[in-house]
Amino acid sequence: MRKGLALTAGEMEQVEDCFRCHLQSETALIREMGEYILAGGGKRVRPMLVLLCARLCGYGGEKRLELATVVEYIHTASLLHDDVVDGAGLRRGRPAANTVWGNAEAVLVGDYLYSEAYRLMVRIGDLRVLHILADATCRMSEGELNQLRNVYDLTLDELRYQEVVQGKTAILIAGCCRTAAILAGVDDEREAALDRFGMLLGTAFQLLDDALDYVADARTFGKVPGQDLREGKVTLPLIHALDRASREERAQVERLLHKPALEDEDLVWIGELINRYHGVEYTRRRAREMVEEAKGLLRLFPASEAQDALDELADYIVIRQQ
Amino acid sequence: MRKGLALTAGEMEQVEDCFRCHLQSETALIREMGEYILAGGGKRVRPMLVLLCARLCGYGGEKRLELATVVEYIHTASLLHDDVVDGAGLRRGRPAANTVWGNAEAVLVGDYLYSEAYRLMVRIGDLRVLHILADATCRMSEGELNQLRNVYDLTLDELRYQEVVQGKTAILIAGCCRTAAILAGVDDEREAALDRFGMLLGTAFQLLDDALDYVADARTFGKVPGQDLREGKVTLPLIHALDRASREERAQVERLLHKPALEDEDLVWIGELINRYHGVEYTRRRAREMVEEAKGLLRLFPASEAQDALDELADYIVIRQQ
Repeated sequence: MRKGLALTAGEMEQVEDCFRCHLQSETALIREMGEYILAGGGKRVRPMLVLLCARLCGYGGEKRLELATVVEYIHTASLLHDDVVDGAGLRRGRPAANTVWGNAEAVLVGDYLYSEAYRLMVRIGDLRVLHILADATCRMSEGELNQLRNVYDLTLDELRYQEVVQGKTAILIAGCCRTAAILAGVDDEREAALDRFGMLLGTAFQLLDDALDYVADARTFGKVPGQDLREGKVTLPLIHALDRASREERAQVERLLHKPALEDEDLVWIGELINRYHGVEYTRRRAREMVEEAKGLLRLFPASEAQDALDELADYIVIRQQ
Repeated sequence: MRKGLALTAGEMEQVEDCFRCHLQSETALIREMGEYILAGGGKRVRPMLVLLCARLCGYGGEKRLELATVVEYIHTASLLHDDVVDGAGLRRGRPAANTVWGNAEAVLVGDYLYSEAYRLMVRIGDLRVLHILADATCRMSEGELNQLRNVYDLTLDELRYQEVVQGKTAILIAGCCRTAAILAGVDDEREAALDRFGMLLGTAFQLLDDALDYVADARTFGKVPGQDLREGKVTLPLIHALDRASREERAQVERLLHKPALEDEDLVWIGELINRYHGVEYTRRRAREMVEEAKGLLRLFPASEAQDALDELADYIVIRQQ
């Protein structure tokens, strides 16, 4: 992400100002919780994609900064609600907002951020931008609901898994790229290309996340792989392994998932099964294929620094180790 | 509400169809929970206000049906989230959706309904409508957050109480009336009049709700008045009584609210204090004044059946017994 960071450094500072200035509610809790989350790190991938795609399309208008704020607000609101939904205690290594302020407060501040995002979109004043991002937030809720429904469901196949991933992650990333193209006023072909670029990138991003969950991290000594599975999330590494596993192995996984709680040794056993059938490698390979297809779509645009930065951002997704 | 119901009966059927048709998500839970709530009664005050105000302004276009759907979706989404926030077990005498399906599901289906409301607003295609309702939903979250902050706060005065009431109830009712006026394309004066009409009506509506909470209902034998106070909600009947109470009485209320939980006898004592200082009558009187002012604003429009129906709806708010 080095090139992207360098290219957008000045703009990102303006966007950070935007984040803060639109949080100036009279309600103290909105300011406090908003700043806590926005200050809590996060790689700002979505705003950066807005800025880089706008630049790729030759658009430098003010509205790109507002759009970058909108997508980060939507993302932040969805994180707040996801933490309540998942009962998460930590977010990016710090106590999640719902554990600091309470679930009720996290739900309401999430609602506020969604509404504020729409308020900002109205200011941007483009009905197509509104349409695409309203559609994205609909599908994000559907994706999260589908994920709840799929908990501990070993019949989940790669196709349904991809639908969940699209809803929970990729649709908003695609929305970032496409709405930037709309602000820039490019033709339909280029707009569709950036939409697809974002969808591939977002899917690859989530695939890597799901793969890394099964990779023991040398720095976090003793980390047991497969934490997502403790929450019942069946992801591609396991889906791929189960596809190839023997009947006995499948039956054993089923038995384990029927236990009241997964022990560390259960997760270790499942991790070994995934290694035996190269579930992590397969997931990484699928992500790499998507990233390559995504980069190909950028060739519709003339070579530029923005294009280089987007290429690098795409590559970063598949090489990152955390 | 008899006249309003009679006048809008045919339209309301179409609106009910709209409710259902926009819930046709692929995600079963959205359909199930959505139908459960929409079928769960509710007086459809907000859609009816949209239809009556549109009619008052001489507007009969299709978009009024979509707008009526939008405001009911926003209202329903906010109820779903409020039930999670309040930990409510019942809603309109039935188990609340969050107790049937779980808090996580209620949060996500609420998010979906908000997004679907925006998607519908984009179809309506008027940026001012979007602006007003995005603003309303922002202020609704603020209102709920302020209410959380004010829990058991005896320094709450009538002004701050009114702000909470505006946020949690009146702002959306005002939005219903104003956006109907916008679709109709009336001049600024009439648009502002309907906005104010809705704000007064919505505030009066909530005041009556808060007053009725302190009125023992003969039909629900043994109901202890003041259930809102159990949740820490300090409302106008108590605020008014405390304003007039002796220092000893105030101190006693404070002592009671510091107890881990309010007993029935505590609530009875507080109910008597409120009666002594006519807190319920005062609240009803304030509501009546607002309704009278609201009805006066309708005189900007020529006499019509819609005007009669709105008059009656306004009166209903202050005479209702539940």
